Amino acid sequence: MLEKRTPLNVQAAIERCIDQSQKMPLIDVSIEDSLGYYLAEDIIAAYDIPMFDKSPYDGYAIRSAASAGASGDNRLAFKKIDHIGAGSVSTSVLSDNEAVRIMTGAPIPEGADAVVMLEQTVETAEGFTLRKSFEPGENISRQGEECTKGEVVLTAGTKITPGVIAVLATFSYQSVKVRQKPTVALIATGSELAAADEELAPGKIRNSNGPMIAGLLAEMEMDTETYRVTADHYEHLLAIVERALSKHDIVITTGGVSVGDFDFMPAIYAALSADVLFNKVAMRPGSVTTVAAKGSQLLFGLSGNPSACYSGYELFVKPALKEMMGAANVHAPVIKARLAADFTKANPFTRFIRAELDMVSGTVRPAGFNKSNAVIAIARSNSMIILPGGTRGFKAGDLVDVMVTRLTDVAGTW
Amino acid sequence: MLEKRTPLNVQAAIERCIDQSQKMPLIDVSIEDSLGYYLAEDIIAAYDIPMFDKSPYDGYAIRSAASAGASGDNRLAFKKIDHIGAGSVSTSVLSDNEAVRIMTGAPIPEGADAVVMLEQTVETAEGFTLRKSFEPGENISRQGEECTKGEVVLTAGTKITPGVIAVLATFSYQSVKVRQKPTVALIATGSELAAADEELAPGKIRNSNGPMIAGLLAEMEMDTETYRVTADHYEHLLAIVERALSKHDIVITTGGVSVGDFDFMPAIYAALSADVLFNKVAMRPGSVTTVAAKGSQLLFGLSGNPSACYSGYELFVKPALKEMMGAANVHAPVIKARLAADFTKANPFTRFIRAELDMVSGTVRPAGFNKSNAVIAIARSNSMIILPGGTRGFKAGDLVDVMVTRLTDVAGTW
Repeated sequence: MLEKRTPLNVQAAIERCIDQSQKMPLIDVSIEDSLGYYLAEDIIAAYDIPMFDKSPYDGYAIRSAASAGASGDNRLAFKKIDHIGAGSVSTSVLSDNEAVRIMTGAPIPEGADAVVMLEQTVETAEGFTLRKSFEPGENISRQGEECTKGEVVLTAGTKITPGVIAVLATFSYQSVKVRQKPTVALIATGSELAAADEELAPGKIRNSNGPMIAGLLAEMEMDTETYRVTADHYEHLLAIVERALSKHDIVITTGGVSVGDFDFMPAIYAALSADVLFNKVAMRPGSVTTVAAKGSQLLFGLSGNPSACYSGYELFVKPALKEMMGAANVHAPVIKARLAADFTKANPFTRFIRAELDMVSGTVRPAGFNKSNAVIAIARSNSMIILPGGTRGFKAGDLVDVMVTRLTDVAGTW
Repeated sequence: MLEKRTPLNVQAAIERCIDQSQKMPLIDVSIEDSLGYYLAEDIIAAYDIPMFDKSPYDGYAIRSAASAGASGDNRLAFKKIDHIGAGSVSTSVLSDNEAVRIMTGAPIPEGADAVVMLEQTVETAEGFTLRKSFEPGENISRQGEECTKGEVVLTAGTKITPGVIAVLATFSYQSVKVRQKPTVALIATGSELAAADEELAPGKIRNSNGPMIAGLLAEMEMDTETYRVTADHYEHLLAIVERALSKHDIVITTGGVSVGDFDFMPAIYAALSADVLFNKVAMRPGSVTTVAAKGSQLLFGLSGNPSACYSGYELFVKPALKEMMGAANVHAPVIKARLAADFTKANPFTRFIRAELDMVSGTVRPAGFNKSNAVIAIARSNSMIILPGGTRGFKAGDLVDVMVTRLTDVAGTW
């Protein structure tokens, strides 16, 4: 008797995965190791930035009052009384037409309230002359002009990028609170799969899903263990999944989720008493994608067809991993772009098409042969066209939804 | 006497860096370690994909001729003579109304030319009945329908993504030819800099450029060595740069490139007899960004101001690193977006503003306080607004150029 499955709307399926994703425990990581984690705490300015009034230029710190009346016909002379670089504090207190030679980043000496750029001066034996008057505060980077002590400068859930690391370093952080990354077990199933070091006997194909998903996880620097399936029967596979669950937060399988005679995953979810969140999604490819929860652990049953497997990862696994890591935003942006080629297939279910998006021109085209088992189009894609279910096909020039999965470089500058 | 520098147009400066970037030597990497490299060879299909006619569904392989005339009123009976999963080859040759129960991915048995999906059958003791006729080739994934042996499926210069790894795995690659990554020395200069483990004495600030650039390099998994500057004088810094050049392909310094009294980099380039490609770029911030070549080695002298340092890395270092690695495309895409806020400053030089791009709405806004020494806006940015030199400011709603530096997630699904 063939099992009947009720398809779930794809956004509802994504939401169900996220709702089920439990946040990982808090840990401290050193800022050098923090890249790719998400802030688990707001970052609050520990002091004003800049910390002190400073010079934004190489030049001379002066009292602006002393420059009053300066002009091309009336160059005023200043006397250099000190000379400081960044990192040094002048002990001088300026009066009258005194000046301190000062370099970019150095604190403004006491008594000074303006900075004359080197380019604006003519050197003399004693100091320099200038030909214009200066306003109080001119050419000074004011203490606190970027942010003041106590201000929230970055919020929890922000992805830690090199720019975030720069902020953490600025505020003297040596480590930062984040959420641990989930550890992942990766299991490619299917009796047709030959590993890279095995002979490609008749009827066999290479296991490409395993290396692909491992690569996708590596891009997020997830701690991943790949399990090798050595015999294609239920008991063996169940034992592997049980072993994986004993060690990992997430178990990703590829293949075995459909209704075929050798699709063991549905029986394995049952044997584990896992709560199946869905086993049919109203989408193509990958309608048989199944996600199950066992306590706080998630089991992602991705399709064995590469294009379906890839789409399932992008749609369900990636947002869930981010949610577990405490990300504020977990969804890939979906933008509008113009189809550069006809796509005439009807779409009973929402269709995802691996695509080449040209951000510069705002156009998009399928990245090649587009069946569920296609693999080359994945490699050529940086996005997925999303065609709503119930539509009869689209023409070149139509505006369509495009999920941007990857930022790709272009040939020329702007 | 103040040195006069002639500003170079920013695109010309970028081009000069790329022209000077020499391709790294060829190496073989295992496909597991190949992520983030660029293909140094075209990938040619070693065989047809699919390799053989196969079933895209779980069902029965039949002779289509035997289904002629089937209808709801005239269900035709088929006899199951074999049962195969993916990876198995049936030894049966079909005749008449014989059928082989076949699973997704399994090779089509001899004599069969169509596949009936399980859902289209009603099981009987001997096999099944069906109610529709099938065309020759119906529900068969044809050998070579995705690509044929000898076809170039991916070209040299393509970035190795998880999808590319899937293609390499498909064609039995265990390793692939790429260009080595350049090794990078990173040297943060400036007497005002306090390392994370040093006291923040008056006049000092934290070294944020070092950790930031290290993070940017880590995102490309570059082999980076950070050199610590322990004394701020010319001889010490020269010795460090010489040591770095003896070990690395690329030397990145931050700070010390301007015309200040403690800016030692210009003298160091001279002492090394390095060929200065430019030392002034018609851009804000970072106009003093300097790039020099010493044989095949490149020295990037980035500004000590964080926003300028960051922009210099994105504009000059990143494309050069990609060029050295053999990337076909090395430039970040520049798209059009609508300003969501006024930007009224005049732009004598081309201005780069760290910005928040909302790809979904197509709008962009400055990411915060926007002086050369700002750091928080870098952390909040995923792009840079590019305002051409010679313009007097822009208003909300104006269409501007935006360099997309980072793909950021969004709050909701489409």
